[in-house]
Amino acid sequence: MTNEELVVIGQDGACCPGLSAAPLDEDRAVELARVFKALGDPIRLRLMSMIASRGEGGEVCVCELTPAFDLSQPTVSHHLKLLRQAGLIDCERRGTWVYYWVLPGVLDRLAGFLTTARTAAGAPPEGLPS
Amino acid sequence: MTNEELVVIGQDGACCPGLSAAPLDEDRAVELARVFKALGDPIRLRLMSMIASRGEGGEVCVCELTPAFDLSQPTVSHHLKLLRQAGLIDCERRGTWVYYWVLPGVLDRLAGFLTTARTAAGAPPEGLPS
Repeated sequence: MTNEELVVIGQDGACCPGLSAAPLDEDRAVELARVFKALGDPIRLRLMSMIASRGEGGEVCVCELTPAFDLSQPTVSHHLKLLRQAGLIDCERRGTWVYYWVLPGVLDRLAGFLTTARTAAGAPPEGLPS
Repeated sequence: MTNEELVVIGQDGACCPGLSAAPLDEDRAVELARVFKALGDPIRLRLMSMIASRGEGGEVCVCELTPAFDLSQPTVSHHLKLLRQAGLIDCERRGTWVYYWVLPGVLDRLAGFLTTARTAAGAPPEGLPS
């Protein structure tokens, strides 16, 4: 159950030009929209947060994720599949359960894509904790 | 035509706990999912990029945005409305045309929400240009 889906963000270890750097081309927009769409659902965003808050190298058993939602296990697994297909997480089955983790660096690369030149150049972003 | 819609990111100038800091609560997930959903469409992502690439304080006339797409003006305006309702952009009508700009700091705050503790603490994110 390794991730053989399209990995949009940082598949080659290099980051894309930022959203504010220049108008996005169509193909890149299609790829990146898929990532944002995956995050554009409250259930998936909470799942992503539950997994990501384990920190780098951390992982979560699906058996810990499902009880947090008033949803069936197949529905939760479907949402997890969409996050995986967007290249945000990966998983592995071990015995009865499947374990999920955030792909290394993917959130920071997505953050880097959104960061404007002003902040990238070192100016402190407004409203962020110092 | 000022933005009276819900401004999800940084309405009070303060940033939220990051996605990786702790599991998101349901209400916050609903609010933030709306922002990511707005970006989760190739047309809206290209519109956002076209507007954001004008830099801080820059703005774009809808008359410049529409010709970039094989879409009707009402369709483009609908996509722009969704970006505006998500609190990402605002607009003003002047004479014949409507002008759009990115709300100050919103992209950097969204980036800050995605940035992991590792990067926030100063470690260079993998795959980002140095």
